[in-house]
Amino acid sequence: MKSGSAGTRQRYCLTLGYDGTPYAGWQVQPNHTTVQQVLEETLHRLTGEAVKVHGSGRTDQGVHARGQVAHVDLSTVWVCDRLRKGMNALLPPDIRVFGIRRVHGDFHARRSAVRKEYRYFLWNDEVMNPCQRLYAVHIRKKLDLVAMRAAADILVGRHDFASFTANPNREVESTVREVHYIAIRKSGPLVTIAAASEGFLYKMVRSICGMLIRVGEGDLAPADIRAILASRIRTARVPTAPACGLFLWKVWY
Amino acid sequence: MKSGSAGTRQRYCLTLGYDGTPYAGWQVQPNHTTVQQVLEETLHRLTGEAVKVHGSGRTDQGVHARGQVAHVDLSTVWVCDRLRKGMNALLPPDIRVFGIRRVHGDFHARRSAVRKEYRYFLWNDEVMNPCQRLYAVHIRKKLDLVAMRAAADILVGRHDFASFTANPNREVESTVREVHYIAIRKSGPLVTIAAASEGFLYKMVRSICGMLIRVGEGDLAPADIRAILASRIRTARVPTAPACGLFLWKVWY
Repeated sequence: MKSGSAGTRQRYCLTLGYDGTPYAGWQVQPNHTTVQQVLEETLHRLTGEAVKVHGSGRTDQGVHARGQVAHVDLSTVWVCDRLRKGMNALLPPDIRVFGIRRVHGDFHARRSAVRKEYRYFLWNDEVMNPCQRLYAVHIRKKLDLVAMRAAADILVGRHDFASFTANPNREVESTVREVHYIAIRKSGPLVTIAAASEGFLYKMVRSICGMLIRVGEGDLAPADIRAILASRIRTARVPTAPACGLFLWKVWY
Repeated sequence: MKSGSAGTRQRYCLTLGYDGTPYAGWQVQPNHTTVQQVLEETLHRLTGEAVKVHGSGRTDQGVHARGQVAHVDLSTVWVCDRLRKGMNALLPPDIRVFGIRRVHGDFHARRSAVRKEYRYFLWNDEVMNPCQRLYAVHIRKKLDLVAMRAAADILVGRHDFASFTANPNREVESTVREVHYIAIRKSGPLVTIAAASEGFLYKMVRSICGMLIRVGEGDLAPADIRAILASRIRTARVPTAPACGLFLWKVWY
């Protein structure tokens, strides 16, 4: 269905959180359970309508969300709070709908987004905290946060991030993106990397975090980052950090 | 084996963390996997010795630990760091050994403990955070922290806590305990109750937390707490809060 041509259909915007551990990512795919699929099945059970849920972006297998946004069109007019409660009553406890609001038919969860923030969590201690093992990555070596922040600062701004994406489709899509901020905070052994952009390329956040971890461990210097960025070629020097540390944190419209 | 008569045996003190979700508590029991059992099997695999691991106390089914302490006697002299690494290499990722030190044969993880702190975590928001669902309890109604703190203050000090234990064995054991502090903190939707005592009775922490939640929700007034404490009779007015919110946080010697 085309945006804006909804007729009697009403568009709803959902804010979602999920524990990505058991899911094969956001997007519907055969033979695997995905978040999008569970949401669509839940809405089908609740409303009787076969609907498509459009996310602000696909999260990869094992990636979590604290503030994923999605839209869906429904033929029936719902009180938003009742729809939220009805969905949460049927959804498995690892997916929650935090809020629902009615939006204009022009609103599109992916195309209308103007900024996204991801957060990546590291447990920087000799031994992993067992209750963080599904939501953070264990880094044993003491991270040099000063070096990590210097490297992060090089990436902030408008750059060609071809070195930081796994997307081979360079011909048809620009790899230039503006990164608004990369903030690195520490609270006890928990280190958080918060990165915001108008839009990230495929695996860009995990590539940036993988590289920042290497800088923090002393394997790369901040000065190397400028060369990697300028090369616009993806190499093994930029590893993709594991999925379980990553949360889609917030989407702005 | 009697304490202190170890001969060539050496006593080791272990600091442990675990995600209690899949375990039937600490203590070995038939037909269920327990933390103590996994530790003993791991030590058997690593050292070849059939040993008994003595914890500072039993945690119930589903209760977590951030700082459980245990001791074990081994015939072989180990470098503590090697023993810790060897254990962590064999243990499942939901149990971790944070540290090991050699101790005198007089040290006893349970009998030598002088203070324990437990922490109880509540997620106080309309919708549960799916990534906290295994480590905190969802309380939808906005908690009145001022009332909870007033109720907590009544419990601090030396009292007969018979109303706050599920232990029917009142004849043989005193139910008088000194509670050193009960601190209630809030950070966003996460509310933490930290309680320390020279030693807690069976289900005492979860009973205190269950009651504090009822006070926070407005079902009980702080003044009711004094009457419940004075009654020294366990009633349904003091519910046992769910296990998953509880962590054995620290043990002092």
